Amino acid sequence: MIEEKGILFILSGPSGVGKGTVRKELFNRKPDLKYSISMTTRNRRTGETDGIDYFYKSKEEFEELVEQGQLLEYAKYVNNYYGTPRAYVEETLAAGHDVFLEIEVQGALQVKENFPEGVFIFLFPPSLVELKNRIVNRGTETTELVLNRLKEARKEIEMMDAYDYVVVNDQVELAVSKVQSIIQSEHLKRERIEKQYKKLLEDEME
Amino acid sequence: MIEEKGILFILSGPSGVGKGTVRKELFNRKPDLKYSISMTTRNRRTGETDGIDYFYKSKEEFEELVEQGQLLEYAKYVNNYYGTPRAYVEETLAAGHDVFLEIEVQGALQVKENFPEGVFIFLFPPSLVELKNRIVNRGTETTELVLNRLKEARKEIEMMDAYDYVVVNDQVELAVSKVQSIIQSEHLKRERIEKQYKKLLEDEME
Repeated sequence: MIEEKGILFILSGPSGVGKGTVRKELFNRKPDLKYSISMTTRNRRTGETDGIDYFYKSKEEFEELVEQGQLLEYAKYVNNYYGTPRAYVEETLAAGHDVFLEIEVQGALQVKENFPEGVFIFLFPPSLVELKNRIVNRGTETTELVLNRLKEARKEIEMMDAYDYVVVNDQVELAVSKVQSIIQSEHLKRERIEKQYKKLLEDEME
Repeated sequence: MIEEKGILFILSGPSGVGKGTVRKELFNRKPDLKYSISMTTRNRRTGETDGIDYFYKSKEEFEELVEQGQLLEYAKYVNNYYGTPRAYVEETLAAGHDVFLEIEVQGALQVKENFPEGVFIFLFPPSLVELKNRIVNRGTETTELVLNRLKEARKEIEMMDAYDYVVVNDQVELAVSKVQSIIQSEHLKRERIEKQYKKLLEDEME
């Protein structure tokens, strides 16, 4: 048998592009993927479980882990830290499971620095006009915020350089199928499996 | 709209691995692919059409084209030349269609030299034991030939280095789906489409 390590897939893209929707539909299809569990300093809410919803840490513990390089990325929102713990990702990959991370562009770029062997997928809006409409329709933003978001999106799209793949989110179903193709074909890359195959060959020829 | 050039996909692998079966099943699924049309010096048979079944050339014409670098690969069988004309491939790609070529390993390595931007897929036998059985069951080989084929297969498998992807042909349906994933995900590679996207962005922002 061929034993293979898992692959870390990172789905990212500008705000409003529909990352969460694509991720939900992908997981509805029951793929052979583990969702990356985040670490946070915010309080555990009723119904949440440590190690399932989040890994809960104190601010001091979190900062110590950051210091030790134990976070693939992190950010502070509303006085709490949120981040991706390296240990969970590495242990899951070593056990042969793929890990899937859906994240903002800034976070993805941090992951790229700390874990360049990940496969980075950029979710692209069908057009910036539609991106604008989507943000407006969320109804949670003022016009000024929308304009700032657009400006930000422009910068984020220029960050496409750091990614391996680009998927247009024109239809969610189609975008999810494309992400699934990327996941499957990455496992077929020669450089990933060459060593295992050469070993298989040696065993057969003896 | 984003205009994209087609991609040349090369399916290859050791003899007996089932390249032809995978190619037939792939085309049964009506993919958006043009099959590469070969050039030959053998006589046109009843029912065959020039430019559909083959491009038919005289020996002199063929050798002239080889001289001019107009063949991506070629070989001589039973006193006739067979090869892949560069012009047909390049014109088809320029028109935005993918081209699919199923070919022996030696031919694939020639294509790799002459057209390195192709995507090279290596079809791998589930095991060399099964490869041996398949060759025997074809019933067209003597034992000595089988042993030679196996020796050759070993060499061919070591040629895997030249390929981008490796697909195990344990089940034809599964192998075909994997090839389809590779075709789809290659179109999603960032470096292929970055320029077009940046242009799209500029148009939208004006």
